[in-house]
Amino acid sequence: MLYIVGLGSGERYLTKEAEEILNNVDLIVCYKGYKKYIEKFNKPTYTSGMTKEIDRVEKALSEAKNKDVALVSTGDPNVYGLASLAYELNYIKNYNVKIKVIPGITACLLAASILGSPLHDFVVISFSDLLTPLDKILKRFKLALEGDYVICIYNPLSKRRKEPFLKAVEIMREFNKNYIIGIVKNAGRENEEKRITDFKDLYKNLNEYLEYIDMNTIIIIGNSETYVIDNKMITPRGYLNKYKVIPCYKK
Amino acid sequence: MLYIVGLGSGERYLTKEAEEILNNVDLIVCYKGYKKYIEKFNKPTYTSGMTKEIDRVEKALSEAKNKDVALVSTGDPNVYGLASLAYELNYIKNYNVKIKVIPGITACLLAASILGSPLHDFVVISFSDLLTPLDKILKRFKLALEGDYVICIYNPLSKRRKEPFLKAVEIMREFNKNYIIGIVKNAGRENEEKRITDFKDLYKNLNEYLEYIDMNTIIIIGNSETYVIDNKMITPRGYLNKYKVIPCYKK
Ligand SMILES: C[S@@+](CC[C@H](N)C(=O)[O-])C[C@H]1O[C@@H](n2cnc3c(N)ncnc32)[C@H](O)[C@@H]1O
Ligand SMILES: C[S@@+](CC[C@H](N)C(=O)[O-])C[C@H]1O[C@@H](n2cnc3c(N)ncnc32)[C@H](O)[C@@H]1O
Repeated sequence: MLYIVGLGSGERYLTKEAEEILNNVDLIVCYKGYKKYIEKFNKPTYTSGMTKEIDRVEKALSEAKNKDVALVSTGDPNVYGLASLAYELNYIKNYNVKIKVIPGITACLLAASILGSPLHDFVVISFSDLLTPLDKILKRFKLALEGDYVICIYNPLSKRRKEPFLKAVEIMREFNKNYIIGIVKNAGRENEEKRITDFKDLYKNLNEYLEYIDMNTIIIIGNSETYVIDNKMITPRGYLNKYKVIPCYKK
Repeated sequence: MLYIVGLGSGERYLTKEAEEILNNVDLIVCYKGYKKYIEKFNKPTYTSGMTKEIDRVEKALSEAKNKDVALVSTGDPNVYGLASLAYELNYIKNYNVKIKVIPGITACLLAASILGSPLHDFVVISFSDLLTPLDKILKRFKLALEGDYVICIYNPLSKRRKEPFLKAVEIMREFNKNYIIGIVKNAGRENEEKRITDFKDLYKNLNEYLEYIDMNTIIIIGNSETYVIDNKMITPRGYLNKYKVIPCYKK
């Protein structure tokens, strides 16, 4: 049996279900950079590096024929993790393994909780153009702005991949709104950091932000109603208008 | 101190952080329908009914001035929960309470894990027009289809509120694509149920689906690449194309 398990971000956000499974499997397979997160389970492990995703999934599937195996992702395994690849390879290569996905707290939910309460109807989008064409990413991003969605950006930029982010900034500029923007780095980890800013500041200090934002960062862009209270990013749901508690309040 | 805590859906998906906080607070405030989920913590509780959200939040804030209080939501408290209302009332009414949001597994992540691996870039949208105008909901929904996003629908319909759903079905019809559609009821609960179908079937048997879908249901609409393997809903991330493992495989 193959369990595809979400670790959440930071061990405090592991679910009971995930913990129990990790305590009971015979083998844990993961990206080598995440080995530190699974050491405490004291299990045999198989790790491999970036771009070795197919290798890891095939190892997990072949071992899962006669063992209980956990293939782990940080956050949720369905959010830019390896769950769909496992289902696909299982089918195409006839492993005939039973697969179960165990959800986890995905990075944007943890980042949102750190920023305050920025979500309403929202979009989750990855800026990595390794597997999705850049045109498609930018089209999606633009439509999300048009829809006044809150937008959660995964894989925002890396040392080598700045183009999607820079193009997205240009698209935001065309919308000519001073979006509130929340940035959370290393959510749930020791070196967790957050910043709440707005589009004007981001645009003015773009080079500084290009240094600051990295691959362990989630960016959340507010919708047209998002505002800031005491350094928390808040997107109202509309209760106060509906029940007319306070007809109008300062943003 | 006020903790706004996500319970996840079903007790197996509670995080350690949430559990510890619920074991340590002096009072738990929640919607009366959820009382059963917090009984095991054996704490004083305050509950009230639907449309009493402001009442509950104010009770939690006033008690939190000199106690540790948990205001709980199912799933994640930032996803159509009460977190933003708490920040707003705290500010407007000068409660000066310290607030912390504790994330939880939101229903769409659990539903996705039950359906297989349907997510890629995705939208989370509520069809409830109590707090958001119907025009805005439908505009957002249409843009999400245009962007070929996977779409997770919360609050899809109720006995009295079928119009947003019916209008959304008409919008989907205009796109003239046979979307794969996953439906999960009571995710993580005893009476959990799932169905995987497609737009043609939904449209043909609309009345049956209007009976089947209720307020404890999440609907996930696939993107143009979503397909079904062994009754699991799969949206590829593109690894197999990229690494040319299998140049082409049957949908
Ligand atoms: C390949 S995706 C994996 C996402 C993961 N499966 C999840 O659900 O959170 C990697 C991206 O997730 C985001 N991310 C993951 N963990 C994070 C953390 N602890 N803090 C901030 N962002 C994180 C970053 O945007 C990163 O580039
Ligand atoms: C007011 S929203 C609250 C969402 C919750 N805060 C969360 O993050 O899951 C209520 C909607 O969430 C969805 N939902 C919540 N729990 C669910 C469950 N166990 N199974 C299926 N859908 C659920 C349904 O669409 C329901 O109408």
